[in-house]
Amino acid sequence: MNFSLSPELRDLQERTRRFISEEVIPFEHDSRLSSHGPSEGLREMLVDKARKHQLLTPHANKEFGGLGLSHLAKAIVFEEAGYSPLGPVALNIHAPDEGNIHLLEVVATEAQKERWLRPLVLGFIRSCFCMTEPAPGSGSDPGMLRTTAVRAGDDYLINGTKWFITGASGASCAIIMARMEDGTATMFLVDTDQAGFNIERQIDTLDTCFVGGHCVVKLDNLRVPATDVLGQVGEGFRYAQVRLAPARLTHCMRWQGAARRAHDTAADYARTRYGFGKPLIEHEGVGFKLADNQIDLHSARLVIWHCAWLLDQGEQGRHESSLAKVLCSEAQWRTVDRSVQILGASGVSDETIVARIFRDMRAFQIYDGPSETHRWSIANRIARE
Amino acid sequence: MNFSLSPELRDLQERTRRFISEEVIPFEHDSRLSSHGPSEGLREMLVDKARKHQLLTPHANKEFGGLGLSHLAKAIVFEEAGYSPLGPVALNIHAPDEGNIHLLEVVATEAQKERWLRPLVLGFIRSCFCMTEPAPGSGSDPGMLRTTAVRAGDDYLINGTKWFITGASGASCAIIMARMEDGTATMFLVDTDQAGFNIERQIDTLDTCFVGGHCVVKLDNLRVPATDVLGQVGEGFRYAQVRLAPARLTHCMRWQGAARRAHDTAADYARTRYGFGKPLIEHEGVGFKLADNQIDLHSARLVIWHCAWLLDQGEQGRHESSLAKVLCSEAQWRTVDRSVQILGASGVSDETIVARIFRDMRAFQIYDGPSETHRWSIANRIARE
Amino acid sequence: MNFSLSPELRDLQERTRRFISEEVIPFEHDSRLSSHGPSEGLREMLVDKARKHQLLTPHANKEFGGLGLSHLAKAIVFEEAGYSPLGPVALNIHAPDEGNIHLLEVVATEAQKERWLRPLVLGFIRSCFCMTEPAPGSGSDPGMLRTTAVRAGDDYLINGTKWFITGASGASCAIIMARMEDGTATMFLVDTDQAGFNIERQIDTLDTCFVGGHCVVKLDNLRVPATDVLGQVGEGFRYAQVRLAPARLTHCMRWQGAARRAHDTAADYARTRYGFGKPLIEHEGVGFKLADNQIDLHSARLVIWHCAWLLDQGEQGRHESSLAKVLCSEAQWRTVDRSVQILGASGVSDETIVARIFRDMRAFQIYDGPSETHRWSIANRIARE
Amino acid sequence: MNFSLSPELRDLQERTRRFISEEVIPFEHDSRLSSHGPSEGLREMLVDKARKHQLLTPHANKEFGGLGLSHLAKAIVFEEAGYSPLGPVALNIHAPDEGNIHLLEVVATEAQKERWLRPLVLGFIRSCFCMTEPAPGSGSDPGMLRTTAVRAGDDYLINGTKWFITGASGASCAIIMARMEDGTATMFLVDTDQAGFNIERQIDTLDTCFVGGHCVVKLDNLRVPATDVLGQVGEGFRYAQVRLAPARLTHCMRWQGAARRAHDTAADYARTRYGFGKPLIEHEGVGFKLADNQIDLHSARLVIWHCAWLLDQGEQGRHESSLAKVLCSEAQWRTVDRSVQILGASGVSDETIVARIFRDMRAFQIYDGPSETHRWSIANRIARE
Repeated sequence: MNFSLSPELRDLQERTRRFISEEVIPFEHDSRLSSHGPSEGLREMLVDKARKHQLLTPHANKEFGGLGLSHLAKAIVFEEAGYSPLGPVALNIHAPDEGNIHLLEVVATEAQKERWLRPLVLGFIRSCFCMTEPAPGSGSDPGMLRTTAVRAGDDYLINGTKWFITGASGASCAIIMARMEDGTATMFLVDTDQAGFNIERQIDTLDTCFVGGHCVVKLDNLRVPATDVLGQVGEGFRYAQVRLAPARLTHCMRWQGAARRAHDTAADYARTRYGFGKPLIEHEGVGFKLADNQIDLHSARLVIWHCAWLLDQGEQGRHESSLAKVLCSEAQWRTVDRSVQILGASGVSDETIVARIFRDMRAFQIYDGPSETHRWSIANRIARE
Repeated sequence: MNFSLSPELRDLQERTRRFISEEVIPFEHDSRLSSHGPSEGLREMLVDKARKHQLLTPHANKEFGGLGLSHLAKAIVFEEAGYSPLGPVALNIHAPDEGNIHLLEVVATEAQKERWLRPLVLGFIRSCFCMTEPAPGSGSDPGMLRTTAVRAGDDYLINGTKWFITGASGASCAIIMARMEDGTATMFLVDTDQAGFNIERQIDTLDTCFVGGHCVVKLDNLRVPATDVLGQVGEGFRYAQVRLAPARLTHCMRWQGAARRAHDTAADYARTRYGFGKPLIEHEGVGFKLADNQIDLHSARLVIWHCAWLLDQGEQGRHESSLAKVLCSEAQWRTVDRSVQILGASGVSDETIVARIFRDMRAFQIYDGPSETHRWSIANRIARE
Repeated sequence: MNFSLSPELRDLQERTRRFISEEVIPFEHDSRLSSHGPSEGLREMLVDKARKHQLLTPHANKEFGGLGLSHLAKAIVFEEAGYSPLGPVALNIHAPDEGNIHLLEVVATEAQKERWLRPLVLGFIRSCFCMTEPAPGSGSDPGMLRTTAVRAGDDYLINGTKWFITGASGASCAIIMARMEDGTATMFLVDTDQAGFNIERQIDTLDTCFVGGHCVVKLDNLRVPATDVLGQVGEGFRYAQVRLAPARLTHCMRWQGAARRAHDTAADYARTRYGFGKPLIEHEGVGFKLADNQIDLHSARLVIWHCAWLLDQGEQGRHESSLAKVLCSEAQWRTVDRSVQILGASGVSDETIVARIFRDMRAFQIYDGPSETHRWSIANRIARE
Repeated sequence: MNFSLSPELRDLQERTRRFISEEVIPFEHDSRLSSHGPSEGLREMLVDKARKHQLLTPHANKEFGGLGLSHLAKAIVFEEAGYSPLGPVALNIHAPDEGNIHLLEVVATEAQKERWLRPLVLGFIRSCFCMTEPAPGSGSDPGMLRTTAVRAGDDYLINGTKWFITGASGASCAIIMARMEDGTATMFLVDTDQAGFNIERQIDTLDTCFVGGHCVVKLDNLRVPATDVLGQVGEGFRYAQVRLAPARLTHCMRWQGAARRAHDTAADYARTRYGFGKPLIEHEGVGFKLADNQIDLHSARLVIWHCAWLLDQGEQGRHESSLAKVLCSEAQWRTVDRSVQILGASGVSDETIVARIFRDMRAFQIYDGPSETHRWSIANRIARE
């Protein structure tokens, strides 16, 4: 066993940290940020900076323009990127593009890769992932999928409503999950400017860090040629798993950086702000919270590293990524919540970045499987041991 | 001992509940709501409705136009009002006016009451309470007060910076806490349109339920006649206590309603939304959360009632209101947080009211004494037992 | 609403408190205590003391020799008694006799009362309640009852195994729950010296406060005359509910006293013991724990009082007693656990009484319905609202 | 980074697991176990078994008869040993001998090693560590040390009272910490059969797994030759740190095994025991608890491994061992507590081993620095960052 990082990885970590600090954090109060996320213009500017620093889309294969990072290397770099709410946007490793890129690398044909993957990796376009549906469709339970794809000559006709589709507004392409006539599911690749792909509205959400926000998308007789099926017909649910285990882990990585930022901000405040005759950090009521932050950050990081290493060994890591998702989403949240409390008025307002992290992070306990679904899966595996 | 409510109080409870449901909730998505709270116009409309239903400013003395409610009666009515983020605004029982009205009733001269209390009770104007200061001034520790009042003839000249002054924007009058040359503190009553009372900016905060938002106020040679001292010179810290114990409890009352709303919303959702083959509420992972909500709501309500009864007996209730503040702000928060989790996507977005309650309520663990300060006070009393 | 106690009740509270302090606590290290509870001799001595102080069996009807306390009065007196692990034994209000006495008062015939209830109330004999069975019989799920009662002429023949039968060793009589041939359940009253009632062994348990410990009882062709059926044939499950709601609440009352004792012991220690330059209680890490103890004790007490009042109004209180059981068993446990932590070495050893309370109280989250069963019931009622 | 174990270590893990399962667990209900731990005879029998399996004292240097395990290898082997309350005794890796052996290896002279270390490593004798004192002496705060050592010719005369001295009864030798006339502290090596070393009594404690229990030791003019000073005069506090960081981590390792045992026992029960129509584990209220157990066990194990690796790199790891101590002692405890709850009656009695683990483990949050002291240290380091 060995917990050391290679010199190359340390260097990449250090470069990313400096990039975030010097090139990204200064834009955290940019006027191009709205309640539905950074604007496309702001994104392009940040992506351009990352490109210049050779930090763009680092998880993608080298042949398409990435750095070909291992899962473990991602754990290091993504944590650094997550230190700013704008970091993942700048590095082009934000959800859902990061996971879509991974899925396309694994499943897409060469032609599909050239058409969609290459510009995604280069940061020229954005994508979305159309799976979740409003009740009574598929939310936490993918089996409740109601969007349909029906064969019509050489094409498929897709109908249904998707919601909470992150980044749909402004995305150039979409991966759509639909139910076939035989009950199986298939994934389709589509350009969003096509007739039948309609963004109904943007949903107002707690978080504000995702480019394009979260949208309701109506699919109205959307016609997709059979050549744009992603992978095999009927394999949609399996591909969702291919996408989900690593995607869920990269969320853990990015939010790890955000939680560390909240902690650092609270610790700085507690060191310098006085109350009742001494610095706040010397009050155990404050200091113990910071200690608990470190314990939570430490264990969350180790759990991420372990799972990333497993994936690097070629394992699916479904059990371990469930453990990691629950632990990280809750430990990181506790860290942010304690930081808010320590910061007081500065924690519940935009006087510091922490209130924004607080808003951005709450949904992490819900998306990519709420804690309850993962606990159920874990228990299920224990039952079958 | 007796936990029953009088028929009159039950009737008032029922009337308030119906008023909130029929007259207030329909305006929860009104366009006059901004990130800095309901507009003055919306407030006036709601206050007018409450006036017509004879529910306006119910805690104020009857002679000034209120219903003269006891603390216990307030516990019942304020919980009902808190069921909507707009309820306290409609009934004119929102912070800080509710506490200011109480303080003026206890301390102000007859002339001061006519000039400021009467229009406040009638809902014609709003007020603010200028105590908190930015570092290194008084935050959780009132002893760090830095705003000064210096005698100048028949007047006082006040200088300093106040922040997180709730409702300052749009308020007609203010109560200002300042340090005297001898180190004691005094409260002053001022009209906000006076030279030297300057609102520097509105702070962006998590919460959006307070009319006028939260402001930074610069006091720049603000001249106050000695007749506008509130109560006695040098008694400011004591009056702050007079205001705080009941004010802290009325927060508990209002948020109790908000937490119940979150719970009801989540319970409705869990009864009707299906996942994995049955209604969500039949999954223990969801049902147990709702059970915990009820346990938290039940104990919080009893602790509020007990403390209100104590205050009605003429006791100061400083210990009990500290117990209530910590328990309620944390139990109600847990309730809201669990409700968010149950609601999933609908809990972290404006698809339901719960995300707004989540945002509005977080600061309750901080203002009127953060949990840490109250735990310290409680421990201090145990130490001296 | 009114939280005051009558002068009579205050007096009874004070008398009980003094009795426990002066007459009971001195025997807490008596040599007649074993890992299976106080000996019969010690019990008789303590009961005799209570009899002399007119505090014996205070919950029983006056006509049988009790004080006829209301549920609310029990809340006051039982908390005082619970302050010592020996207090409930002394006052003859320990489980299972306390609940059995209540059940007999409600359901037994006059002849049965004379034969069994009267000596129980007078503290001359003890009883047990034979319901729980080892797997695959009835544990938390009473529907899994496997002990059978078969009609044989004027008698019933009972066969089965019961376990965790508190107080069976040394009990003179037993209430036995058995399944009838038609699937319903019936309760029977039996003398334990009868053929077919065999105590197989005493189980080694964490707790040591119950007289007679917890036993495995084999019922081997136990013959019971039909006249000794308790109440109506086939009504066993219903009577179990009659017994359980108040019995579960009296557990809350007694353990409330025990938790307060743990807190008081820890607070005394923290006031007088020094570490790192000041009394432990002045360290927030200790003081905050004591504050949380008070918050937990306060809310648990109010929840008990409220439920007791409801029962006094003639309500069944099944929902409220479930809320109370979960809240109290967990809040009181947290209080004891924090007290152990504060006391350090003195908390995990017999240097103070707290380690014993810790051992005695853990099972309270399990018996009379584990927290999980009550949460399920509460959720179930929310589902049907 | 790399989480794999070498084939040799896997083999050792497997051998230890089988040894515990086949040779140690069968003795868990041996009659030679008392409330003050396993008897010396039982210990010798188990040690003999370990010797035959070449698993005795595996952490000691090879030259003295151990296996010379690295810290990481200890993490693997000690977890396996901790799976039974008797496992650490059998392998001779129990507290305090395990830590004493480490300290002697680092600090003792060659002559001292021959005299005391060799027979300790061979399992022929036991030792104790006399540091903790009753109030007002040194408990959590070592600076309050009151036992004195005064020079008398070539000897020192030691006077004082020590308590909670684990294993003192039956130990052949002791390491004693005493305050010098100049205020520094020194460690002394003594044989316990010497005049002036008196065991006053054994303390009754929650735990029952330590050979010799926990004793009060009176040091009454105990004469120690200057040659038996351990290391340098005046370096006692520093050596205590040398001993503590690894000793604290080996506690984490052993209790990790115990917590896993509790979890496995609860999981087996939940798979096979039915309630309300299905196996308990299929109730989310139970399954989620088991999932949380796995999350806690997983993160605790990773934190242990990481800290062990750091120590293997030659780092002191004081910060990381504090993080590990708090996280492990609390996460492992939660695991055991949940297991108790799942097991119900079988969890609070000796029907399973879990009640004993529950009793044995509670003090782990207290000894070797209570959680509060470690949180304080962690906060202190954050303050100085």
